[in-house]
Amino acid sequence: MDADSYTRTTLSTADLAEQDRVLGALAQRTRELVDATMRTEVDHAEVEEITALIEALTTRLGKQQRPGSLGVEIGPDGTMRNPGNAVVGLRNPVAPPLRVERTPDGTAAASFHLGAMYEGPPGLVHGGVSALILDQMLGEAAAAGGAPGMTGRLALSYRRPTPLGDLRAEAAIHEVNGYKTTVHGRILDPEGNPTVEAEGLFVLPRWARDAMADARRPDSFE
Amino acid sequence: MDADSYTRTTLSTADLAEQDRVLGALAQRTRELVDATMRTEVDHAEVEEITALIEALTTRLGKQQRPGSLGVEIGPDGTMRNPGNAVVGLRNPVAPPLRVERTPDGTAAASFHLGAMYEGPPGLVHGGVSALILDQMLGEAAAAGGAPGMTGRLALSYRRPTPLGDLRAEAAIHEVNGYKTTVHGRILDPEGNPTVEAEGLFVLPRWARDAMADARRPDSFE
Repeated sequence: MDADSYTRTTLSTADLAEQDRVLGALAQRTRELVDATMRTEVDHAEVEEITALIEALTTRLGKQQRPGSLGVEIGPDGTMRNPGNAVVGLRNPVAPPLRVERTPDGTAAASFHLGAMYEGPPGLVHGGVSALILDQMLGEAAAAGGAPGMTGRLALSYRRPTPLGDLRAEAAIHEVNGYKTTVHGRILDPEGNPTVEAEGLFVLPRWARDAMADARRPDSFE
Repeated sequence: MDADSYTRTTLSTADLAEQDRVLGALAQRTRELVDATMRTEVDHAEVEEITALIEALTTRLGKQQRPGSLGVEIGPDGTMRNPGNAVVGLRNPVAPPLRVERTPDGTAAASFHLGAMYEGPPGLVHGGVSALILDQMLGEAAAAGGAPGMTGRLALSYRRPTPLGDLRAEAAIHEVNGYKTTVHGRILDPEGNPTVEAEGLFVLPRWARDAMADARRPDSFE
């Protein structure tokens, strides 16, 4: 978590929206390409020609690039975003991405589709992909309720197989205890049956608590 | 888990190796493209041209394709593979992919690299990606020790942040109790410090136990 992982954008709100449009489309078309590379049955000569063209596009994109990962982007209004996030990142082709509905009382919900790239057992979502999605959803619920943190513990119970396809995930804060937040959540299959249940403990790191205390200090002297 | 998720290949061992070479290269070049799309800073006109070219390649790959996910491929020697697996699948651009070393006494180990596409907090591996990798590693250890199963429970303890970059994961069977196997594992940072620890319970489903019992029956009548 380097300081240079935080980038304050110099773009206006309109320019940022245009950037999201252009780079969001790149990510979405790349997601579709990933799925197509997995399921294709075209002949080997055609695959090899396409492979070479993909390599050429990588070279073009790499002519100017940031050295590391995307980190956190601070917008013109001060809001922070994580465009590279593996579950919700607009710019991450590996992310479905989830569009999470959050409420201030600490709930999060999302409907999403998982295709071939998320497979574990044949025809089923990888158990670890369910864990990945639930970790994000539980963290979103904690943050939505004003009690954010980094994952301290995560416990998953697999009730029945999760089929690839259309799914839903829900999470809600169970308890807030100082800087520790307990959150419950689950994945639901298309019939509404819970397939995986999760309980997570999210802990606000000391440095973040210190930063928040510092930010509050001026008020206490008024 | 449909019956058509199991495909018995009609290829010879040599043809299968050639297919792995061609389709493995397609997946690897696509992995590199995903990383490049995320980190690129080329101008919008160039991004939009590349986006259109990616869409055209998806169309070419889609001219012939299987309807669903890759499922399990049964090789000429009867071995089963899961080329679409989200962690170890040769054909899955989302998989790092892990190359897992397994031993018959029930251990699994892998060294791997996680780049921008696996980010959660800035500069760090997404907590759920660590869960994804550990779920696979624990399952590999259970299978390596002859006590395979599907994930029943998975409990993760996050000890310290996991930095993006070069990492290692290890897992070993802790206990086998009939058709239930308990496995322990962890992720190690480049200094060898454990960042995430996991305990998993893997359960062999009834249908698999029945199939194995049926397979054994002829011997018991000898």
